[in-house]
Amino acid sequence: MRGDGAPSRVYAPELGEPGSTLVLSAEESHYLVRVCRARPGDRTEATDGRGGVASLRLVSVAGGVEAEVEASSRTTRRRRAWVLCGAPEGSRADWLVEKLAELGVERWQPVDCERGAWTRATGRVERWRRLAVAGLRQARRCHLLEVMDPAEIGTALVGVPEGAAGWLASREGAREVGRSDPDRVAVGVIGPAGGLTAAEEGGIQALGFSRICLSDGRLRTETAALAWSVWWSMSG
Amino acid sequence: MRGDGAPSRVYAPELGEPGSTLVLSAEESHYLVRVCRARPGDRTEATDGRGGVASLRLVSVAGGVEAEVEASSRTTRRRRAWVLCGAPEGSRADWLVEKLAELGVERWQPVDCERGAWTRATGRVERWRRLAVAGLRQARRCHLLEVMDPAEIGTALVGVPEGAAGWLASREGAREVGRSDPDRVAVGVIGPAGGLTAAEEGGIQALGFSRICLSDGRLRTETAALAWSVWWSMSG
Repeated sequence: MRGDGAPSRVYAPELGEPGSTLVLSAEESHYLVRVCRARPGDRTEATDGRGGVASLRLVSVAGGVEAEVEASSRTTRRRRAWVLCGAPEGSRADWLVEKLAELGVERWQPVDCERGAWTRATGRVERWRRLAVAGLRQARRCHLLEVMDPAEIGTALVGVPEGAAGWLASREGAREVGRSDPDRVAVGVIGPAGGLTAAEEGGIQALGFSRICLSDGRLRTETAALAWSVWWSMSG
Repeated sequence: MRGDGAPSRVYAPELGEPGSTLVLSAEESHYLVRVCRARPGDRTEATDGRGGVASLRLVSVAGGVEAEVEASSRTTRRRRAWVLCGAPEGSRADWLVEKLAELGVERWQPVDCERGAWTRATGRVERWRRLAVAGLRQARRCHLLEVMDPAEIGTALVGVPEGAAGWLASREGAREVGRSDPDRVAVGVIGPAGGLTAAEEGGIQALGFSRICLSDGRLRTETAALAWSVWWSMSG
């Protein structure tokens, strides 16, 4: 294993019970064998992305990795954040999705707005899901970023959990907002590159969302989404 | 001009006095004419990236943009931050540099460390400088991110301004660090993808740098650099 002082962690949607054999996917096997240079007998961890973590002992690495589950544990998500994000310019969302996964955001919800809709590029959501797994591995988390299909902003807002603390990224918002309440799901709404309309902003505020100003400059959509997530992450 | 409710802002290293004629570069002309669809008679702003802002009236747009300087003003930088950053994996720094420019960071200093040196790719620093200008335009700032050539980390640390408040991104650092002191230059050090050595960390702390933990997960180099900059930006 790479000598960076901490065990690697891979993703396996079904972990199985201690004593059972876990067969890793081609992608996770590649990561362990090619990137981490794992060998039979090495120990590592796997997570199901839903709070489960299994300690593994690698049995064979030829072809794909097979490992024995030595122990397992489960934790619940301590803090929850959803990002409802309008379309940025170009393919700028890819980098963003990976970063949100690293920061521990729970759900990535692309939203279609009046001044900006997500293009339905083939394979985009699948690519985001791979990037979410990469971020999970990188940050050694046990909860996977949930990648949603794009939805109308109104539909997405209706699906926000009851009792959530809603935030609307806005240059007219407050600069001093303190911390995010750890007992409530934090929901950040970020407009598309073309901005939200006054009607959209009014509707979001009518739902009880507070405006938050993330910078003294005008941020791009993906920068604002990341800044909001960092603010949330550092509030924990 | 684009109907997004605010004037565009372009970059011109030398603004000239009110009454004089300003000739914009090919890149800035392209931005105004092709992206903002500017026409003769339109008004816009230019900054020299050193705090100067000029109000412009476009005289001609064929070939390159020529504009009359109608008024000018100058402001000093209210808050200052330097990012000393080790090499991330691949070309992940490009996106980062643009984001630091948007957030208003003063200086980008890539640092070579024992476990990671920047490759001297041809044109990389020039590309970063173009991205810094793009970030300046986007955020409508009047101070340009200063892009430095990569330097040894020891050399870079010697060049930190006296009285600076130094921060070392570290998972062992404090989660609750409050805000950045607005009266001191904030300097953030972020290790390369391979991490800093214990000796490097010790040396940085001996210079009075405080350790700051930016997430409950293990962040990639570029994510940590961005998170530190967001923290600094939101402290303002």
